[in-house]
Amino acid sequence: MTGFVADTTDLLARTPILLRTLLGGLPASWTDTPDVADGWRPRDVVGHLITGELTDWMTRTQRILEDGTAVPFDRFERFAMLERDAGVPLDDLLDRFAELRQANLARLATMVNETDLNRRGMHPALGEVTLRQLLAAWAVHDLDHIGQIYAGLAGSHDPDVGPWKAYLGILLRRDDPSAVPG
Amino acid sequence: MTGFVADTTDLLARTPILLRTLLGGLPASWTDTPDVADGWRPRDVVGHLITGELTDWMTRTQRILEDGTAVPFDRFERFAMLERDAGVPLDDLLDRFAELRQANLARLATMVNETDLNRRGMHPALGEVTLRQLLAAWAVHDLDHIGQIYAGLAGSHDPDVGPWKAYLGILLRRDDPSAVPG
Repeated sequence: MTGFVADTTDLLARTPILLRTLLGGLPASWTDTPDVADGWRPRDVVGHLITGELTDWMTRTQRILEDGTAVPFDRFERFAMLERDAGVPLDDLLDRFAELRQANLARLATMVNETDLNRRGMHPALGEVTLRQLLAAWAVHDLDHIGQIYAGLAGSHDPDVGPWKAYLGILLRRDDPSAVPG
Repeated sequence: MTGFVADTTDLLARTPILLRTLLGGLPASWTDTPDVADGWRPRDVVGHLITGELTDWMTRTQRILEDGTAVPFDRFERFAMLERDAGVPLDDLLDRFAELRQANLARLATMVNETDLNRRGMHPALGEVTLRQLLAAWAVHDLDHIGQIYAGLAGSHDPDVGPWKAYLGILLRRDDPSAVPG
């Protein structure tokens, strides 16, 4: 496997395995804290990723291939998970996400190849985008939100590290985003 | 398993599995970018975590148990990996880290229990710290640096996402740490 589609799929396929490794059965002492005040707990992030599998990335891929720029993408419901997933255990959300991601990547493999990457679609706010940009954004969106999960996990133990907080940028940035780069 | 030592060990034991899941065999198109300009690539972060296993966390745990606050901790060589690991493949670094972490957690289980958590040591810069704070800092240090790996992975595809960058805080913060909270 080489090429942009294969390399992007490689990363996308790791996310559900990784989230189970990180969060499956993890004690609530780690998982009940949002990334920032009024932010998302790990379960909310997994729910948001589920929404992306249900309504965003593959739906938009299909729209690019079928309609090009003629029909703009539907908007992405960023908070759909808060009501939909209320009361669903985190481990069930991880399973649900894994099933959806696996099915979507199987579909992607049948629908898209390297020669499609410059095909264009219309984002309702961002304007014209390419399929290549959509697939890259899908993968980086995973990375972005997993980073948010890490911030929540770290935040759960903010009171426990004592003076070490001064060295832990992931905690300092929860209080002040400009505190420590990187 | 319940209690602080068990819950902390639970998270610490996941890190090597997680890093292999995320980085093992991942194409260099993802892994060759630092978290920020002049920052660390994923391989540098794994090297830094190896240093922690070799010289920091368990050495300090032992010092607290043997010497209390009488002998300050040795300083942590934050850049030891740059020379030590030059030329070592990333997959080999992942294996090395996994071996060291597993051995350290096995030692920890024989050395420490809940009743030891308030024992104190002397950090050369931070002053008095507890064993509980040391163990929490060990785990949050993992989370902090894995977050750094995510920033590097995302950064490798910064040019590919096009206008979506406006929505991807993990990319915006590489340019400006105050850009987007969380």
